[in-house]
Amino acid sequence: MAFETFSLTIDNYIAGVTFNRPERANALNQKAWEEMKAIFEELDERDDVRVIILSGSGRHFCAGIDLELLMQVAQSAQKCEGRKREKLRRQVLELQAPINAIEQCSKPVIAAIHGGCIGGGVDIISACDMRYCTDDAFFTIKEIDMGMVADLGTLQRLPKIIAPGIAREMAYTGRQVAGREAERIGLANRSFADADTMQSEVLRIAQSIAAKSPLSIRGTKAILNHSRDHSVADGLDYMATWNAAMLLSNDLMEAFQAKMQKRDAVFL
Amino acid sequence: MAFETFSLTIDNYIAGVTFNRPERANALNQKAWEEMKAIFEELDERDDVRVIILSGSGRHFCAGIDLELLMQVAQSAQKCEGRKREKLRRQVLELQAPINAIEQCSKPVIAAIHGGCIGGGVDIISACDMRYCTDDAFFTIKEIDMGMVADLGTLQRLPKIIAPGIAREMAYTGRQVAGREAERIGLANRSFADADTMQSEVLRIAQSIAAKSPLSIRGTKAILNHSRDHSVADGLDYMATWNAAMLLSNDLMEAFQAKMQKRDAVFL
Amino acid sequence: MAFETFSLTIDNYIAGVTFNRPERANALNQKAWEEMKAIFEELDERDDVRVIILSGSGRHFCAGIDLELLMQVAQSAQKCEGRKREKLRRQVLELQAPINAIEQCSKPVIAAIHGGCIGGGVDIISACDMRYCTDDAFFTIKEIDMGMVADLGTLQRLPKIIAPGIAREMAYTGRQVAGREAERIGLANRSFADADTMQSEVLRIAQSIAAKSPLSIRGTKAILNHSRDHSVADGLDYMATWNAAMLLSNDLMEAFQAKMQKRDAVFL
Amino acid sequence: MAFETFSLTIDNYIAGVTFNRPERANALNQKAWEEMKAIFEELDERDDVRVIILSGSGRHFCAGIDLELLMQVAQSAQKCEGRKREKLRRQVLELQAPINAIEQCSKPVIAAIHGGCIGGGVDIISACDMRYCTDDAFFTIKEIDMGMVADLGTLQRLPKIIAPGIAREMAYTGRQVAGREAERIGLANRSFADADTMQSEVLRIAQSIAAKSPLSIRGTKAILNHSRDHSVADGLDYMATWNAAMLLSNDLMEAFQAKMQKRDAVFL
Amino acid sequence: MAFETFSLTIDNYIAGVTFNRPERANALNQKAWEEMKAIFEELDERDDVRVIILSGSGRHFCAGIDLELLMQVAQSAQKCEGRKREKLRRQVLELQAPINAIEQCSKPVIAAIHGGCIGGGVDIISACDMRYCTDDAFFTIKEIDMGMVADLGTLQRLPKIIAPGIAREMAYTGRQVAGREAERIGLANRSFADADTMQSEVLRIAQSIAAKSPLSIRGTKAILNHSRDHSVADGLDYMATWNAAMLLSNDLMEAFQAKMQKRDAVFL
Amino acid sequence: MAFETFSLTIDNYIAGVTFNRPERANALNQKAWEEMKAIFEELDERDDVRVIILSGSGRHFCAGIDLELLMQVAQSAQKCEGRKREKLRRQVLELQAPINAIEQCSKPVIAAIHGGCIGGGVDIISACDMRYCTDDAFFTIKEIDMGMVADLGTLQRLPKIIAPGIAREMAYTGRQVAGREAERIGLANRSFADADTMQSEVLRIAQSIAAKSPLSIRGTKAILNHSRDHSVADGLDYMATWNAAMLLSNDLMEAFQAKMQKRDAVFL
Repeated sequence: MAFETFSLTIDNYIAGVTFNRPERANALNQKAWEEMKAIFEELDERDDVRVIILSGSGRHFCAGIDLELLMQVAQSAQKCEGRKREKLRRQVLELQAPINAIEQCSKPVIAAIHGGCIGGGVDIISACDMRYCTDDAFFTIKEIDMGMVADLGTLQRLPKIIAPGIAREMAYTGRQVAGREAERIGLANRSFADADTMQSEVLRIAQSIAAKSPLSIRGTKAILNHSRDHSVADGLDYMATWNAAMLLSNDLMEAFQAKMQKRDAVFL
Repeated sequence: MAFETFSLTIDNYIAGVTFNRPERANALNQKAWEEMKAIFEELDERDDVRVIILSGSGRHFCAGIDLELLMQVAQSAQKCEGRKREKLRRQVLELQAPINAIEQCSKPVIAAIHGGCIGGGVDIISACDMRYCTDDAFFTIKEIDMGMVADLGTLQRLPKIIAPGIAREMAYTGRQVAGREAERIGLANRSFADADTMQSEVLRIAQSIAAKSPLSIRGTKAILNHSRDHSVADGLDYMATWNAAMLLSNDLMEAFQAKMQKRDAVFL
Repeated sequence: MAFETFSLTIDNYIAGVTFNRPERANALNQKAWEEMKAIFEELDERDDVRVIILSGSGRHFCAGIDLELLMQVAQSAQKCEGRKREKLRRQVLELQAPINAIEQCSKPVIAAIHGGCIGGGVDIISACDMRYCTDDAFFTIKEIDMGMVADLGTLQRLPKIIAPGIAREMAYTGRQVAGREAERIGLANRSFADADTMQSEVLRIAQSIAAKSPLSIRGTKAILNHSRDHSVADGLDYMATWNAAMLLSNDLMEAFQAKMQKRDAVFL
Repeated sequence: MAFETFSLTIDNYIAGVTFNRPERANALNQKAWEEMKAIFEELDERDDVRVIILSGSGRHFCAGIDLELLMQVAQSAQKCEGRKREKLRRQVLELQAPINAIEQCSKPVIAAIHGGCIGGGVDIISACDMRYCTDDAFFTIKEIDMGMVADLGTLQRLPKIIAPGIAREMAYTGRQVAGREAERIGLANRSFADADTMQSEVLRIAQSIAAKSPLSIRGTKAILNHSRDHSVADGLDYMATWNAAMLLSNDLMEAFQAKMQKRDAVFL
Repeated sequence: MAFETFSLTIDNYIAGVTFNRPERANALNQKAWEEMKAIFEELDERDDVRVIILSGSGRHFCAGIDLELLMQVAQSAQKCEGRKREKLRRQVLELQAPINAIEQCSKPVIAAIHGGCIGGGVDIISACDMRYCTDDAFFTIKEIDMGMVADLGTLQRLPKIIAPGIAREMAYTGRQVAGREAERIGLANRSFADADTMQSEVLRIAQSIAAKSPLSIRGTKAILNHSRDHSVADGLDYMATWNAAMLLSNDLMEAFQAKMQKRDAVFL
Repeated sequence: MAFETFSLTIDNYIAGVTFNRPERANALNQKAWEEMKAIFEELDERDDVRVIILSGSGRHFCAGIDLELLMQVAQSAQKCEGRKREKLRRQVLELQAPINAIEQCSKPVIAAIHGGCIGGGVDIISACDMRYCTDDAFFTIKEIDMGMVADLGTLQRLPKIIAPGIAREMAYTGRQVAGREAERIGLANRSFADADTMQSEVLRIAQSIAAKSPLSIRGTKAILNHSRDHSVADGLDYMATWNAAMLLSNDLMEAFQAKMQKRDAVFL
């Protein structure tokens, strides 16, 4: 797999996905949206991947949607106003899809953010499982300054991640939230002094996850996704049904035996 | 528009709504509930208003429902117990309506809180978009000390704003949460040393919002309200349909052109 | 009521429920699950109980499900794979039930946690109304190290209590969260220097709750449970219907009169 | 109350609401929408009304939205495409409101339909509690022939009233369903040979309802509205809370006593 | 198992549950509610039961709640109005529970109805899987004539079984629906000329169900219950998870082999 | 586009999709599932298709899933029971997808059924917009006789199409429902004497739909799909947002003008 706008590495069950248009601050053009979707659908399937780290090359994490692409979406050859809007609706759904692919990918996706995380960048990290950043990172819901409503998931996911009052302030004012504040408000799990520290710490966390039962990690993510959008009662019933299917696994046996034998479990 | 229990100013697209019964700590009598509803329905419609600041005159933000009004509600000329309860249910719904009007108002409502925010005051700020306070502000779910269950929205909205464990402690014990704690737990976005500092900072935030595309601000609020009560999947679909209608606006064009011309966008 | 795996005290309207298998770090065997359900169903009914404190004897709060019980669940005499899974689903539902009984108990349940709160222990405290801990407490979603998906409520309830990004980190890595971090992330309302301080402070909070209108405390809990799983609009309508039934009580009258007479209200 | 586009009678607790623009086949202009909303909000409040019959004067029940009004909605002085759509969205919501007022009216509304029930007419009868018609009545979702999607409630309510396969056929083809077919598919409870028979039979049903406990009739409607849009579990819980408030009424006592005394109950 | 108000037979995997207070038209007193709950919970567990037929002894199917019990519920020693209502709410929930037990019983429950099915009787049959009746059966939502809102499930379940317009007519007027009409409106799957014909036909259907894979019958009921209260998307996901657990069974193998061997499958 | 298991024609905006494995009674093998998904995704996009007729070649409509495919699904090389079930869950979801593609296809899909519609065939027609059949057609939920729970949509969609009591009877007993009964219970909109009559009548209906505004037909289907799974209030709000985008179209103008000019509208 070779990509124009991303680089991809797989090592010891850990996939590294990197935005790779540093000269454009990793702004996402049409190609990038397509590749992002393809990558996460591929990683979803691969047995040699158990966890994914998403980061950006160059000075910024991601500058969001490329302006030229946005202008293309805003223009349309459609003569009929109704059909123009019907097509526009489909285009928004299509731009949402690659971000949904992150959430629907069966393995945890960790965002490691430095520099700017702007507009569509915030939509993307909101769909990741966890976020870590550097102190010099900054987050901004830039769409409001483009005279538009952010439509790729930020407004749906962010207020379920951080305090809604802060999410609204960010959405209405577009103000930048820096790394340490991001940690304080729960947007990032932790903010690190510099990118090297962040990368080594995020790698350590990824290694910890890669060493767990991959079946259980996938199940945990599926259940956590389900829980967010259902009542607790519905979630518990779904959970019981899930484990009726998945509980009795080689991994459970291995964990039992490792515990008996006082050794680390090794999951295949 | 002249009001008995509120004062209202509109300046540079910013409406200032102020509880104005300082001699009663801004407790809300029947008149105040009616005026509050009328004000927010009016501000919802007016093109010269893009953002609203809600604050209190005198020593406190708001002491909640006036006790005399509560006693009237608790008494009833109804001979039939069933009809008495049917009427009581309607009265509660009618008292909820002015607070819902804040949430349903299409423009952001910022609460600027000093002194006491008590009982119904907490119901009210929970329906605002964002909350800022002074260090000497205090918040208390006073209803529990009146031998009743808070029924105007606090128990529905607050646990979706702050950590539910803290919300329950506040609801069960009625203890006062002071300004700095309010900031720490996410109840207030920020707590300021004094009222002047708060007011100037809140004004600055309001000015920032008033300078954005009003169409996009209204859309952002509508979508954030929708998101809170729907699954992410439902929210994304609604979002795409919304922007199919609203994306292609003069404001988007102005933002594009301003960016090209390297000037600030001006939204009409 | 005498129990094998719990001790129970009732004093001044406050029930103290204590895990009492300190030699097994309060791991929950079959008997313990049954007794936990019976206790909370009993406390739900008793008029002499208004609030409950849940704590652990010995060095730890609770080590979660007993491994022998887990192994029994994992083994089954069923010859048919389908029936084996059907039975397994029921067993998970039956293990969830005692934890649900905490949530459905009409009185607030306060968890007072010291030492380890491990695996099933986290499932349990997630169903409590509030959590307080000592600085040396630690919380860990241990299931991931057992090669399984936590299935007794942690994944449903915890991400609605703390920032979802932290909840996912805990669920994927199983890392320990200590007392002070628990306070910072909203998992515990407060962390105390030592167990004695915690116990006296938790007792003080429980006494405060026990002195309130018990009818209103029960109503507040019922409404808070309802709110979590419903839209705000649904919650407000339910609330109005609830108070149509419950508002006009002796407790409301007593609160009024106490206020008039400038004395403390006493609720029977 | 005098109306331009409706006539209204109240007699023996039965309100008769009649579309009264026979020269335009009872097509609904702006005035009619406003009056319809006002009428059902008024009837909701009046104690001398227990049940409502909605019918049409002249040859048809209702021809739906007036074409001139529709053309006004379709045109707009708005220069900005985004604001034009925002306003259009509000206009649709405003046209839905009078129909929602029928559903939200606390008393049962019976539609008595003869002749054409066209376009908006179907939206209206779908919000009524029950529908009765004459054999020469016909129902058609005419919007599809106007090059638009029916947006006032037909597509939301009708497929929950009749078999969805039939509802889709009606919506896609706009074909006319006559009275006897309407009865067969459950759109009308009954179809009668002629208008006189229908009116006397509908009056008989209305009298039967007017003789019941008005408190219970209102409660039954509120609960049926709630049930449609909630799970059975949610509905049962809401029901218990409702009757906690409303069960113990003078009407229950009167019904008991009448039964003991072997006489008809009389409800005040 | 011996019961005071029911008779119970189990034969060839078919349980016959019969209301057995013919002298009171099978009206349900406190004992009957308790026994009904116990019976369906017991039948849920028993491996020798695969399907259940519910019928009435004497001239009627069931006259609903016993009036003396209803009067007890309506009276209460509680001095506090709030507590009285709190208790009343619990009592309604407790009366709903035995009916819910029918729905939650893992095996299909077939109602075989002759004579009167009145008030609570309609609540009960609405929770059954299927309904069959005789031509002289009649169904009536009698609660409206008792000055109350039917609160044991009819208003929640019936409008999801038959056309809502008919359900509302029944609920508002209390009119009797006879057997043949019940068949026509989908309330009963079929109406038979007399009780003997009904019983032999219902037995034939029960035998057909008893001969199927009991695991699959239980699964089908569980899924059908789930589907009613969830979106199709949610239902499909739940379904896939369910069959991940239950599909690979001895029963599937037996069905395959029987098909290959061109013989009837026999399920154990 | 050429297919192995289907034939496809497109004529005058009407697509004819025909199951084309008559020698296997149109049982669906792996290839057929893949082609079905590809076809409906393609038809969703094509501007020269406005409505789709789905029928079967040979003696039957469709015999459901091919037994060999089912046996493959039931067998698995997976050594780990947990992973086997995880894969099985995915396989079920993948088999559901082609049927969901029918529902998600933006154009109406009409099922024209003769002969057997068996097992998976019922899953398929339940996802179609409308169903028409011949008198000699028969419908059977055959999965119950295969020792399994029908998992491709029948149990989710059918009870929202026909009376749930009948749906349950079909699901538990697997009994055949013939054409005329299908019409009576609302499973088919109409049953015709023979296949020729059905085909010409279905073609007439398809032509009627193809002559309508295609934008409005697509919108109507999208809204009807949305309505089924949402509350009426949610549906109305979504509807208003939808029409804010789509109402003002060339089709609306053409319909207006055609009406003024008293001619048939022609939609492009």
